[in-house]
Amino acid sequence: MRTLYFLAIAFFLSTCSGAAQMPSNLKLMPVPAKIQPGTGQLVIDQLFTVAANGARDSRVDAGIPRFLDQLSRETGTPLNNQGTDPAKATLAIHVENAGHKVQELGEDESYTLDVTPAHATLTAPNPLGALRGLQTFLQLVESTPTGFAVPAITIQDAPRFPWRGLLIDSCRHFIPLDVMRRNVDGMAALKMNVLHWHLTDDEGFRVESKKFPKLHEMGSQGQYYTQAEIRQFVTYARDRGIRIVPEFEMPGHSRAIVVGYPELASQPGPYPPGRVARDATALDVTQEKTYKFLDTLIGEMSGLFPDTYFHIGGDEVDDKPWNSNPKIQEFIHAHGMKDNRDLQAYFNQRLEKIVSKHHKTMMGWDEILHPALPKTVVVQSWRGQESLAAAAKQGYRGLLSNGYYLDLMFPAAQHYAVDPMSGAAATLTPEEAKRILGGEACMWSEFVNAETIDSRIWPRLMAIAERLWSPQDVKDPKSMYQRLDEVSWRLGWLGLTHESNYVPMLRRLAGQEDIRSLRILAEAVEPTKEYTRSEVFPEPPVQRVPLNRLADATRPESAVARNFSEIVGGYIAGGYKDASAEAQLRAWLVKWQGNHAALKPLLERSFLLMEDQPLSEDLATLSTAGLQALDAIGKNQPLPEAWRVEQLAVVERSMKPRANLLIMVTPSIQKLIEAAAPHANP
Amino acid sequence: MRTLYFLAIAFFLSTCSGAAQMPSNLKLMPVPAKIQPGTGQLVIDQLFTVAANGARDSRVDAGIPRFLDQLSRETGTPLNNQGTDPAKATLAIHVENAGHKVQELGEDESYTLDVTPAHATLTAPNPLGALRGLQTFLQLVESTPTGFAVPAITIQDAPRFPWRGLLIDSCRHFIPLDVMRRNVDGMAALKMNVLHWHLTDDEGFRVESKKFPKLHEMGSQGQYYTQAEIRQFVTYARDRGIRIVPEFEMPGHSRAIVVGYPELASQPGPYPPGRVARDATALDVTQEKTYKFLDTLIGEMSGLFPDTYFHIGGDEVDDKPWNSNPKIQEFIHAHGMKDNRDLQAYFNQRLEKIVSKHHKTMMGWDEILHPALPKTVVVQSWRGQESLAAAAKQGYRGLLSNGYYLDLMFPAAQHYAVDPMSGAAATLTPEEAKRILGGEACMWSEFVNAETIDSRIWPRLMAIAERLWSPQDVKDPKSMYQRLDEVSWRLGWLGLTHESNYVPMLRRLAGQEDIRSLRILAEAVEPTKEYTRSEVFPEPPVQRVPLNRLADATRPESAVARNFSEIVGGYIAGGYKDASAEAQLRAWLVKWQGNHAALKPLLERSFLLMEDQPLSEDLATLSTAGLQALDAIGKNQPLPEAWRVEQLAVVERSMKPRANLLIMVTPSIQKLIEAAAPHANP
Repeated sequence: MRTLYFLAIAFFLSTCSGAAQMPSNLKLMPVPAKIQPGTGQLVIDQLFTVAANGARDSRVDAGIPRFLDQLSRETGTPLNNQGTDPAKATLAIHVENAGHKVQELGEDESYTLDVTPAHATLTAPNPLGALRGLQTFLQLVESTPTGFAVPAITIQDAPRFPWRGLLIDSCRHFIPLDVMRRNVDGMAALKMNVLHWHLTDDEGFRVESKKFPKLHEMGSQGQYYTQAEIRQFVTYARDRGIRIVPEFEMPGHSRAIVVGYPELASQPGPYPPGRVARDATALDVTQEKTYKFLDTLIGEMSGLFPDTYFHIGGDEVDDKPWNSNPKIQEFIHAHGMKDNRDLQAYFNQRLEKIVSKHHKTMMGWDEILHPALPKTVVVQSWRGQESLAAAAKQGYRGLLSNGYYLDLMFPAAQHYAVDPMSGAAATLTPEEAKRILGGEACMWSEFVNAETIDSRIWPRLMAIAERLWSPQDVKDPKSMYQRLDEVSWRLGWLGLTHESNYVPMLRRLAGQEDIRSLRILAEAVEPTKEYTRSEVFPEPPVQRVPLNRLADATRPESAVARNFSEIVGGYIAGGYKDASAEAQLRAWLVKWQGNHAALKPLLERSFLLMEDQPLSEDLATLSTAGLQALDAIGKNQPLPEAWRVEQLAVVERSMKPRANLLIMVTPSIQKLIEAAAPHANP
Repeated sequence: MRTLYFLAIAFFLSTCSGAAQMPSNLKLMPVPAKIQPGTGQLVIDQLFTVAANGARDSRVDAGIPRFLDQLSRETGTPLNNQGTDPAKATLAIHVENAGHKVQELGEDESYTLDVTPAHATLTAPNPLGALRGLQTFLQLVESTPTGFAVPAITIQDAPRFPWRGLLIDSCRHFIPLDVMRRNVDGMAALKMNVLHWHLTDDEGFRVESKKFPKLHEMGSQGQYYTQAEIRQFVTYARDRGIRIVPEFEMPGHSRAIVVGYPELASQPGPYPPGRVARDATALDVTQEKTYKFLDTLIGEMSGLFPDTYFHIGGDEVDDKPWNSNPKIQEFIHAHGMKDNRDLQAYFNQRLEKIVSKHHKTMMGWDEILHPALPKTVVVQSWRGQESLAAAAKQGYRGLLSNGYYLDLMFPAAQHYAVDPMSGAAATLTPEEAKRILGGEACMWSEFVNAETIDSRIWPRLMAIAERLWSPQDVKDPKSMYQRLDEVSWRLGWLGLTHESNYVPMLRRLAGQEDIRSLRILAEAVEPTKEYTRSEVFPEPPVQRVPLNRLADATRPESAVARNFSEIVGGYIAGGYKDASAEAQLRAWLVKWQGNHAALKPLLERSFLLMEDQPLSEDLATLSTAGLQALDAIGKNQPLPEAWRVEQLAVVERSMKPRANLLIMVTPSIQKLIEAAAPHANP
């Protein structure tokens, strides 16, 4: 799924229809299903208390102090909930039934939150709903003239899809547990409920195996999670209403397995540890010992991960190792198979039986789909709604990941516009449609590490979280961005570093405290999109490539470019008459025009920044062109064709990645250039 | 020592003499004793390795991976030191002798660091010197056109004073261990070597006692360090070359002791837990059971804290509980004592014997000084060099804390100018002078908590660290500030939050992402100085007062005000002719003048910010006056007396604390006003 091809779609923010039904002062994300505003507000001060009654559940018991701690941090107010009488609590939680011991797909997550100026009540059929409702309560807290408060309101809420996931790839770069934990906290804040943990791949086997210790000892460069750590982390996620679905990639993406157990590979090897070859690796699925190994391994891992679902990967199996092994080709012919695809289907059938034997439901990527597999299997689609709908029609349940790849560096609005039920999926019968379980955002980690991963996940994941929770008609990107900006920085209280790591990384690049001019450049650019990132150093393995360039520090989405584009759009649509818009555009262009002179000494002094010189220079050149264009438009004196050609050459250059970056204000400036010098013969 | 009185000294930055001997491009802090620049540079890339030979010491062994981790974080470069051949290491460390098992006062901390373009050598007589030298190496790393590098250089370094400490008060606000640890990391980066841990006071007894469990159970509101945690933390500090000296306050500041053991108090009580009375509490030092208790407690704590020195507090014993107990007054008369002071001296003599019996050296604040005490006792002076010198003359060793109180919110340069050997101490004989061991900065925690403490310690502590390590003639505040600004943000790589918590706290105040106008105000003000802070809420205990106001978020020292003051100073000294200075002043004044209109809606919307309205308004009014003054000066047309009187009324108002804040640009604007409207009859 990493070589996924995206059509270059011209993307506009203005595709939205109906506005959200929510009062505009509320910063709720995801938008709840139903909101009824009340009158007045409930003040949150040091006397605030919370208590639960009804069915007891350890998740609610653990959730209350965590909620208070969070409320305390967000308000800077010490809170003390000791000895609270449930009848007198400011916020009373009532849970009707205890939840399942192992959180299940489709378990009730609904809740009702009722806030009056006197007190608040949160009721939920199930502990999960109580956890979701507490997050809504936290998002409602605001500072008012009379203190921190929650507005009087009634909210009835439930998710649209039962599977709202995030995949984190701990293989390409090892992601330490503290980073995993804070991202799970962020997921809980956004009401997500599945962490899909990509634990094995060519680059590393990240789980301790007591049955096959050479897996983690030889296949992880020393970077793996112990079983004790995993058990703790599974409990941590469960406490927050989040299931953990582990992924063990097979039969491809399996080099880390064969480092320690080369006898399982389709080629004899050797597979030296510590380095990751670019060569394809595949398990030899024609030999019985492979199945014996998998039976034992899956048995061990099934005990470690309590969730019902077990992801076996199954994507991108490279033909080479199978093609060049005569024994395997012989097996294919002997068993009357057409090709390697059939061989993979054979493997998946046998694998499914092993997975079932260990009381798990198998899931895998698109490629596993084959009529021979039982209908219990769940398909995760990196290919799109088309393939998802096809699976649903055949009776398979599935979830969408196409359109939700965070590593491709697309803007939040682009992910937000992707609906699992759109396209081919929109034509499904109600019964078929129910098989679409939801979706999963994917954070592949080739170019992220512990320092940068939060900034690549957040805030864009929030748009996907809303897509999967909120009603289908909640789709106004403008409202989404307004709320996103406000909810995003508050995630910092959970320890997420997407905001806090930004300035330190820029300072490291600058080698000094003062980053004003570097920041102006950084906020006009974005990392290159899709799979166009070049490796800074040619040397594998990917884990060893330093991620300390401007492309790593800069945000995936430039709010400055988005705002600039909106102003340009309005200015043009209004027939170039909006003087305030023109003044704002001028202010930006003047700033960018002058910035290169200030930034140049910095760019020249550091090997990390040298590669950004052409970008800084072109931003200044484009800005000069933009200012000339505004002058010409103002005077109604079109500029000559020669000028146009000259400027568009800079535009063309600036549309291409350099130093793995794109100048994101380029298309907007291009519009000004074209408006100032319309083509003579169109 | 909390009611310390400071003379209102007009403080100028221009008191410095000889400039540092250091090349200006180096950002070293504290300045090393001797520097010899070389030619060329040693490149630091992914092949960088480090190894130690000579005497083995666990601190150096643990220090190397920590050093590499830090280097990796600061450069954003994965490093791999596995299987390094000591003979081929880029940085070779040679330690001559293993250190003492328990780090001792005066243990050798010197080192020589020699860097050539080919490799680097760090030699030290003792492991402590190696740890110090590694910190110097880290500070030398810079980004250059050809990569990260350390310039070729030879440094011979050793501290001026053997005792360079920081007191952290864990009583008034409990400071969690992760906060303690990152501050110890910061201390190590600045080559400090003593953490003075203020562990007991009226507000809390913060250590688990197995002998007297009611101490922590009833006297800590549940906030204390377990013995296991303390042992780990002591090792953590030792690994970084830092001694931990615990302080157990007696006979005053002891309310937390008598909550659980009222029979030790001078008054019958009761002393209910959970609340801190403002009433004075003192142990009854006339009864034998008090000494029995202390013998057992000190015995237990001596085992927990391996350091030779044991701090018994001894300051600010309030007379009231002793005066109003007839039995105690009778004891005084019966033993031929003059007064309560004599009684404290009696107590200290007996206490000293107990402390000695447990193989510890007693230390205490000024008040313990009494000729009856043996000369081994160490006196910590919150009163000043006068009292320190008097003690030294009597044969007592001492250290200075007067002038180093971080909670008083004075600027770095003010602390920097305080020299333990100045004033009365400058007249000591060489033998007496040796008794001045160094100094300790004090972070009393009435108005800091886990969120804000880093921003009150750093960066100002860095100036004190340099004062205590570097040669006496290193005292140019301009050089100090240049280096401080650059070294300070790098401390963020250790997890210190003085930079990273700033924006989130402002956003909490603003209740929104956009804090531009709030930040302009925040950077022109400082928290009120000395002991003038009013409690926001009248209700004790102090731990429950929310620290979420602008006075908590704003920095103790305004760099903006400092810069503005320098420009005004230069402008006036140059006879108002410097056009560039004038333009800079105008730019600032225009910004402040216009800021109130932008900020007002925010200030009105939040109860947290309402109190700051008069400050914002007066900053605008002062700026208007400043601009009028610049106009008048430019035209050489003095403004009338009436104008002057009117503006100086605003100046006077702005010099006083409001909302626990001061507008720090006020004195500079006053100068402009007075220059524009000179007094008719001076």
